[in-house]
Amino acid sequence: MRLIGTEELEHIALGASLLGAGGGGDPYIGKLMALGAIRDCGPARLIDASELADDALVVPIGMMGAPTVLAEKGIGSHDIEDLHEMVCEMYGREIDAFMCTEAGGVNSMMPLTAAARTGIPLVDADGMGRAFPELQMETMALGGVTASPCALVDEKGNRVTFRTADNRWLESLARAVTVEAGGNVSVCMYIMDGATCKRYSVLGTFSRCEKLGQTIRGAKREEDPAAFFFRETGALPLFAGKISDVERTVSGGFNRGSVTIRGAGEDQGRTARVIFQNENLAAYRDGALLATTPDLICLVDAATFLPVTTDRLRYGRRVLLIGLPCHPLWRTEGGLALVGPRYFGLDCDYIPLEERVRRLGDV
Amino acid sequence: MRLIGTEELEHIALGASLLGAGGGGDPYIGKLMALGAIRDCGPARLIDASELADDALVVPIGMMGAPTVLAEKGIGSHDIEDLHEMVCEMYGREIDAFMCTEAGGVNSMMPLTAAARTGIPLVDADGMGRAFPELQMETMALGGVTASPCALVDEKGNRVTFRTADNRWLESLARAVTVEAGGNVSVCMYIMDGATCKRYSVLGTFSRCEKLGQTIRGAKREEDPAAFFFRETGALPLFAGKISDVERTVSGGFNRGSVTIRGAGEDQGRTARVIFQNENLAAYRDGALLATTPDLICLVDAATFLPVTTDRLRYGRRVLLIGLPCHPLWRTEGGLALVGPRYFGLDCDYIPLEERVRRLGDV
Repeated sequence: MRLIGTEELEHIALGASLLGAGGGGDPYIGKLMALGAIRDCGPARLIDASELADDALVVPIGMMGAPTVLAEKGIGSHDIEDLHEMVCEMYGREIDAFMCTEAGGVNSMMPLTAAARTGIPLVDADGMGRAFPELQMETMALGGVTASPCALVDEKGNRVTFRTADNRWLESLARAVTVEAGGNVSVCMYIMDGATCKRYSVLGTFSRCEKLGQTIRGAKREEDPAAFFFRETGALPLFAGKISDVERTVSGGFNRGSVTIRGAGEDQGRTARVIFQNENLAAYRDGALLATTPDLICLVDAATFLPVTTDRLRYGRRVLLIGLPCHPLWRTEGGLALVGPRYFGLDCDYIPLEERVRRLGDV
Repeated sequence: MRLIGTEELEHIALGASLLGAGGGGDPYIGKLMALGAIRDCGPARLIDASELADDALVVPIGMMGAPTVLAEKGIGSHDIEDLHEMVCEMYGREIDAFMCTEAGGVNSMMPLTAAARTGIPLVDADGMGRAFPELQMETMALGGVTASPCALVDEKGNRVTFRTADNRWLESLARAVTVEAGGNVSVCMYIMDGATCKRYSVLGTFSRCEKLGQTIRGAKREEDPAAFFFRETGALPLFAGKISDVERTVSGGFNRGSVTIRGAGEDQGRTARVIFQNENLAAYRDGALLATTPDLICLVDAATFLPVTTDRLRYGRRVLLIGLPCHPLWRTEGGLALVGPRYFGLDCDYIPLEERVRRLGDV
C-alpha cells in the first residue's frame, strides 16, 4: 500500500492521458476532480492486486459518455456517494477496493477520487491498459466476467441498475440511458472478487501511468528529449507534422471524427490522418495504414510531449503521432473480436503495430 | 374476492379496449396472454381495494412501448416471473396484490395474467381509468406517489431498476431503454401500500370493464342497439361515418398519427379527424374541437360497437366516434398539467367533453 497525494496525482493524470489514446476524457477535468478529493479528504490508498483477499469485493468505477459533455457539465457531487450506497445494497457488504475500468484521462481519475473521498483503497489495475469507447471492452470480459450487475447514476439523482443478458446488451441499454440523461453518467460494473481481479485485469496501471507522467515531465531536462521520451515510454514514432484539419461530431453518446496532419521534417510532403470514436481508432500515412486499434495511437505535442486528446485537437498545432503496443490479451482472437479494427467498422485485418511499422520502413 | 375465469375475461378484455381510448395495445393479444394463463393455472382472484390491509404491498404491473411492436413480438415467457423476483428482492417481502397501471387493452390483461400465473390477487383498480401514453400519467402521482423504484424486464432476460429524481425522469430514461430493447418491455412501478391504493387509485376498474363488455356484447339483442349502447355505457355520440384516411408512424416508442372520417347519416357532408399518440388525443369536426384529452375519445364499429384501436384503423371501416368523461381527478389543475391538451402539444384549453358537445349542439 502506498499513498497517492497531489504530486503522485499530477504524474498519474499525465500518464493516463497518454494511455487514453486520444480518449478517456479531458485529463484536466478529471485531475481537478481528484485534486479536490485529495485536498478535502487526504491521499488515496493505492494497493497492489496481490494485497487483495481472494474473496474481496472489487468495484470498478468510472464514467460513461462523451468527454466533451463532461467538460461542460462536470461530475455530480453525489455520484460517488450514490454509487457506493447502491453497490453496498446490491451485495449486502462493504466495498474492499475500487478499481479503474480504463486507463484513460477521466476514468483513471474517477476511481482515485472515489478512493480519496470514501477511504476505500484503490487497486493498482484497470480493465483495458488504455481507453476504449464501449463498456464490453474489458479484459475481464475475456475471462468470462460480466459487466452486470451495473449501477449507474447521474447528477440529477437518477439511479439505475442493470442485470443484462450479456455485456453488449448492457452497452446498448446503459448507452441509451446515458444519452437520455444528458450525455455523461457515473457507473460501477464488472464487479468481481479479488481472485478474479488478480487473474483477468491489467495490473500495475497506476504505477505505469505515474512513470509515463514522470517521463513526459522529465524529457525537457534531457539533452535529447525526443530520444529520452521514446526510450522511456517504449512508444514508436509514426509521423510528425502540423494539424491541418479537424472534423468532429457528437453522436450516439460518442465523440466521432478525424484529424489530418500535414507532415514536417522527415515527413514533409506527406499527410497523415487519424480517425477516432472517443479514442483514436486508426492512423493512415498517405492512405496506408500505420496502426489500428487495439494498439494505442496517440498524439503528443511536438515540443512538450504532452498528450493531445481528441477533444483538444486544434488547427495549426505541431504534433507527433506515436504508437504503443496494446496489452497481449487484446491481440488474441477473443480480444480482437471485442476491440479489433473490424468491430469498429474498419475493413482491414489487425496487424500488430510493430509489424506495420517494420513493413512501412521496408518500402 | 371473486374469481375471474375465461368468461369474465372475455367481457373485461372487451370493456378495457373501449377504455383504452384507441390505445393500450391490441386487446386480442392481451386476451390471448391472459386466457393462456387462466387455462394453465386456473382463474385469477380479483379483490376489492377495501379487502387490502393498509400495509399491503400493492404492485402495478404492465407493459411499456408501442402496441404495434407487441403485436409482432409478444410478451416474454419469463417477464412476470422476473418482475416478481425483482420486486420481492427490492422490498424483501412477498407481493400482496398486483394492480393495473392503466385500463387499456394489453395493460389490463397483463395484471390478470400475472395474478393467474402467480396466484397473487389482483386489486379491482387502476391508475388512469383509461389508457395514456406516458408513465407519469397516473392518478397516484396526483397523490404524491412516485413511479420509482421501477423494475423493467424484456424478453431477452435484461433486468433494469430505476430510482429516479422524479416521474418525468423515469418516463424518459425507461422510454430510452424500451426503445433500445426493441420497443416493448414489462414494468412494475408506482409500488405502494394498501392505504395509498385505496385513496389515490381509480377504483372498480375491472368491474366497470366487465359491465362495458357485457353491454357491447348484449347490444345486438336489443330492439334499438345504439340507444342501449349509449344509455348503458354513458358514452356521448360525437360523429358517424367511414374512415377515409389513416396516417401512422412509430417514433420514440409511440404510435403516432391521425385518422380522417367522412360523415354519414346525420353527419353527411362533414369530416371528422382524430389525432393520436398511442391513445386518441383530440377529435375535430370540420376543424372545430369535439373533445380533447383527458376525456376518452373512442372509435367503435358502427354495427357491432366493438372498439377500434389505433392499430386496427382501416380505410373504409364504418365507425362511430364517441366520448366518455374522464375521471374527475384528471379535471383538476394537477391532473390537467399531467394529461391535459397542452401537455400533448395541443394549443387549446381543456373544456369538459359534455360542455363542448352542448356548445356545438347550440350552433
